[in-house]
Amino acid sequence: MKNKMLKSCVVLGGGGFLGLNLCRRLAASGVRVRAFGRRSLFPEFLKEVEWYQGNFSDPSAVASAIESFDVIFHLIHDSTPQSATLDMIGDVEHNLVPTLSLIKIAREVGSPRIIFISSGGTVYGQVTQIPTPETAPTDPITAYGVSKLAIEKYLNLAERLYGLEHRVLRLTNPFGPFQVALKNQGLIAAAISRALSDQTIEIWGDGTVVRDFLFVDDTIDALIAAANHEGKSRVFNIGSGQGRRVIDVVAAIEHVLNRKLKIRCDPQRPIDVPTSIVSIDRARNELGWSPKISFESGLQKTIEWWRTHEAKISHIKNGKF
Amino acid sequence: MKNKMLKSCVVLGGGGFLGLNLCRRLAASGVRVRAFGRRSLFPEFLKEVEWYQGNFSDPSAVASAIESFDVIFHLIHDSTPQSATLDMIGDVEHNLVPTLSLIKIAREVGSPRIIFISSGGTVYGQVTQIPTPETAPTDPITAYGVSKLAIEKYLNLAERLYGLEHRVLRLTNPFGPFQVALKNQGLIAAAISRALSDQTIEIWGDGTVVRDFLFVDDTIDALIAAANHEGKSRVFNIGSGQGRRVIDVVAAIEHVLNRKLKIRCDPQRPIDVPTSIVSIDRARNELGWSPKISFESGLQKTIEWWRTHEAKISHIKNGKF
Repeated sequence: MKNKMLKSCVVLGGGGFLGLNLCRRLAASGVRVRAFGRRSLFPEFLKEVEWYQGNFSDPSAVASAIESFDVIFHLIHDSTPQSATLDMIGDVEHNLVPTLSLIKIAREVGSPRIIFISSGGTVYGQVTQIPTPETAPTDPITAYGVSKLAIEKYLNLAERLYGLEHRVLRLTNPFGPFQVALKNQGLIAAAISRALSDQTIEIWGDGTVVRDFLFVDDTIDALIAAANHEGKSRVFNIGSGQGRRVIDVVAAIEHVLNRKLKIRCDPQRPIDVPTSIVSIDRARNELGWSPKISFESGLQKTIEWWRTHEAKISHIKNGKF
Repeated sequence: MKNKMLKSCVVLGGGGFLGLNLCRRLAASGVRVRAFGRRSLFPEFLKEVEWYQGNFSDPSAVASAIESFDVIFHLIHDSTPQSATLDMIGDVEHNLVPTLSLIKIAREVGSPRIIFISSGGTVYGQVTQIPTPETAPTDPITAYGVSKLAIEKYLNLAERLYGLEHRVLRLTNPFGPFQVALKNQGLIAAAISRALSDQTIEIWGDGTVVRDFLFVDDTIDALIAAANHEGKSRVFNIGSGQGRRVIDVVAAIEHVLNRKLKIRCDPQRPIDVPTSIVSIDRARNELGWSPKISFESGLQKTIEWWRTHEAKISHIKNGKF
């Protein structure tokens, strides 16, 4: 995916999994990149990038960070589907409200484009159409999905009322290097982490839940395509377009690691939909984007990365960074 | 509309236009009614009702007010489409967050049913289908519509996760006695008020905007039907199912008053959709509800009410109550 227009950008959440991958890619292609976030887990991998320490809930920090960049990538969501549902008000206060504040600030600094990462796995809720297109009903069964959806609607409104451009990527389950499952998010990272330290992998339900996994390099391609997009659509599903059962993902990890993993099945959670696969036709047609890396190859690259950086990762996971 | 099951209820926003009408109707039919709100404009009309003074943004006031009633009618929205759009964060903090708090409290006191008044005129945004069914896309063009929609989604989630029952009524433009246009909301009340005091009526655009007006007695019927409903649907459009241009409404008022009104056309606002008419087939079929009072008859009753209570109303509008 070529970057045609983007000259400078700020990445909110630049120290996290997607942020790190995005910042590195953009910086390598000559874009001026500022990464904003509370902490950078791998600062040695962000040398070409300006690091801006700040809390997304602090409007003055956000205001001084975003300046006049071409694009604001908004990758921050300070909750998980589970934590948001346990504390709906906290989720609103830490994610929705600061995003409304960001919209206000972005208007004031002269309307750059905002690229927002929404959630392909949660905004639709219980779906009747699989793969699910962007036009499907949106009835989330987690508070995380509701606040993501509300942010989408406010961005749509801000573009209509104030000309503040935006694109929404409803992303499925990204995986790859720099995902270290600190909040136990990301099945593949969590499973690799447990496997390498010989711990038991806990899964919700019997492992037949189906998810759509996308390698991070393809995800970054989609983010850059959205930053360059000039068409009319504003919301794009981004996934592999294919479903995999959780047990099959674990089996694939066992295959690459060449060893049997310890698995424990916990009761199914009411916040998990049985199947999540998004239709990526719109992204293919309108962003000119498509996934390039097979699941197996992505998994291989991810495990290689873990093996190379095991010492560093275990430092991070032990809180020593 | 017969009330079959409801024995006791609390009406959040019981001192306002819809709340007053609802409380009076329920109390007259023998239901134990508590009205909760910041102020009651017409306390002499709420004599059969227990008045509970409190601020919806104060969780402890809400918690002590709601107790163990059969039904909570949630009629509070502390903003208008215009004010919410000017202060999106304030709208979230004063409406969405206290509603999440209400959900939490309602769970704790043993899951009564919540009946929530949503907005048929704003949740859909720019529609392609007129009359608009409940299944149409929801892309609001006002922040008011976004927060109403977000509340709908959280109520849906709360029922799924915690069994907290709810019904959502996407109401169009109710009018009738006790609507006094204090915040300049409600075209008919505002126009009657201006006409009776010989002031100019300001309308947005050229008056060709089409809205769906419903007499308040029919609206209250729908609220009671929703409180008694036992079917599967959770969201119902409530309107007359018919559209009227703003200029035609003004002409109808002129006709009843038998005098020419002074009108000023201000520029069209970007937050106003050109046409809002909802399909009420679902409410007809599943709630067994339908509007009974013609627009003309409702208007006649409304103007009679204004004439009877003119002194009191002008006291209220001058802040003397």
